[in-house]
Amino acid sequence: VPTTSPSPVFDRTVAVLCGGVGAARLLAGLMDVLPAASITAIVNVADDTEIHGLSISPDIDTIVYTLAGAIDPERGWGLAGESWQALAALERYEGVRPPGSSAANRWFGLGDKDLATHFYRTQRLAEGATLTAVTAEIATAWGLGLTILPMTNDRLRTFVTTAQFGRIPFQEFFVRHRHAINALSVEFEGAVAASPGAAVVDAITTADLVIIAPSNPLVSIGPILSIDAIRTAVEGRRADVVAVSPIIAGKALKGPADHMLASAGIEVSAAGVAAHYRAVAATMVIDDLDAELASAVAAEGLRPIVTDTVMTSRERAAALCRTILGMT
Amino acid sequence: VPTTSPSPVFDRTVAVLCGGVGAARLLAGLMDVLPAASITAIVNVADDTEIHGLSISPDIDTIVYTLAGAIDPERGWGLAGESWQALAALERYEGVRPPGSSAANRWFGLGDKDLATHFYRTQRLAEGATLTAVTAEIATAWGLGLTILPMTNDRLRTFVTTAQFGRIPFQEFFVRHRHAINALSVEFEGAVAASPGAAVVDAITTADLVIIAPSNPLVSIGPILSIDAIRTAVEGRRADVVAVSPIIAGKALKGPADHMLASAGIEVSAAGVAAHYRAVAATMVIDDLDAELASAVAAEGLRPIVTDTVMTSRERAAALCRTILGMT
Repeated sequence: VPTTSPSPVFDRTVAVLCGGVGAARLLAGLMDVLPAASITAIVNVADDTEIHGLSISPDIDTIVYTLAGAIDPERGWGLAGESWQALAALERYEGVRPPGSSAANRWFGLGDKDLATHFYRTQRLAEGATLTAVTAEIATAWGLGLTILPMTNDRLRTFVTTAQFGRIPFQEFFVRHRHAINALSVEFEGAVAASPGAAVVDAITTADLVIIAPSNPLVSIGPILSIDAIRTAVEGRRADVVAVSPIIAGKALKGPADHMLASAGIEVSAAGVAAHYRAVAATMVIDDLDAELASAVAAEGLRPIVTDTVMTSRERAAALCRTILGMT
Repeated sequence: VPTTSPSPVFDRTVAVLCGGVGAARLLAGLMDVLPAASITAIVNVADDTEIHGLSISPDIDTIVYTLAGAIDPERGWGLAGESWQALAALERYEGVRPPGSSAANRWFGLGDKDLATHFYRTQRLAEGATLTAVTAEIATAWGLGLTILPMTNDRLRTFVTTAQFGRIPFQEFFVRHRHAINALSVEFEGAVAASPGAAVVDAITTADLVIIAPSNPLVSIGPILSIDAIRTAVEGRRADVVAVSPIIAGKALKGPADHMLASAGIEVSAAGVAAHYRAVAATMVIDDLDAELASAVAAEGLRPIVTDTVMTSRERAAALCRTILGMT
């Protein structure tokens, strides 16, 4: 049967549960092997924060900037070619900040150009737009054709309990203290009351394949699955869910996933991640370096796929995605 | 009697009712002839606005930046040596802004360094600090020794009714439409319920001299005097109140005061301003160019002082202040 469609390399739809950098790279690979319209990213927003009155969605922005080719490649966040005048000028106010105030805090990196995204989001939210709507507008502004969905439009925030600072918001743990401190426990405040964001459950239910990106299982994927209706939907698709291990040779490529898994009593290995995901995923992609863990993954009830999972280039990311989609 | 004080050039205290640029220049002159601790600026905040979620106080910032020697001398607002990356980056979002949204508006000039001031103010207000407290902190951060008091901590906002756009907030009239459109009328929303800011009435009551700066009588000084307790306090000090005419030879040096006075049915001259201020001021400083209006000012019941009022340099501003203080 002849078709008028522009010869897609693949015709399956995918829904991807996403954190920040690892997910962004996986999505970039998917964009090279699938039509953008076939891809839905369901993104963690439990890391969202308000700083200087601005509404900031770090994982959404990392995904948008990465897919637009605008991300700073060294930092892995924010825009390339960025300037820092506003943040630098805040130094003047450090000395007059009263005790207990967070005004003039400069530990959260806000580049001058990046500010425009926060200005736009903040103003639209203040006008009553949902984060779902604003995120779609931002994706369009950057010329992206995939669907980027916040996991929820409700307030659901990750708090980390630490020995040194007590219970602190995620960004204080992650950015201010550069996750160099130990997380004793993690809570998702607001999870019980939160509803899935618009179109999220539908995307999971109808996608041909659901992918769990190689993001932090506890603080990136964890908040998404902490919303009951999302977890139930993912569990209902277990046979079609493929998780990519963020742990390679016992370490996280980036971020504190390894230390956090250990704190949570989860084995810091692809097998430990498989055990963590056993209720939601039937397939687990593990790195070539972890080939010997394939049987341990299988023992957890997940079909192991062993391949190169290190996405240091867009080509390697696309190759990983072809493997996930069963194209190789 | 010998004194240990550092030989002040003058020992009187002054309270100055202030708008933006004209007031800032007068205050700069006062700072050269009086100890900073003797000067209290009572500043219009009815022009304040929220843009991109940020709390902006244009008149306070113009005064602070001017007195700190940091103002851009050509523009008369914002910081010298400013960059505009954030504002420029907002252009990307213009195309996706839904109808009716004010997100991505770029007509209000926000330089990158200037943003730090708005970030600090916004965060402190969100923490529950009063604008009075935040303004004092900002003045201290810029090394200023005078007292800068917002006229109120309540929400009191100027709206301008125009034929083209209906009733619009002051900054839309003043900045977006560059006050090139005609103001049919002006309202101070919230004036009835507003209380004077902390220390404002006390400053007016106790100052040796009260000065009304050469600011727009309708939309800069007007909002200050729209607060009952402030107007009553100024009226009570009428004998010691000196107003400086913002109209010279029938024109405002800057801004729409001339057109607005005409719209309000007030004669666009120093004599018209004298009539407008007759209940609150006993003395009126008019420019040499308006010497022939001295008798008309006197006929309104105000003692005229004729001198050079054009503050194009700090020296000329200081000379004007010496005259006001009776030092010449």
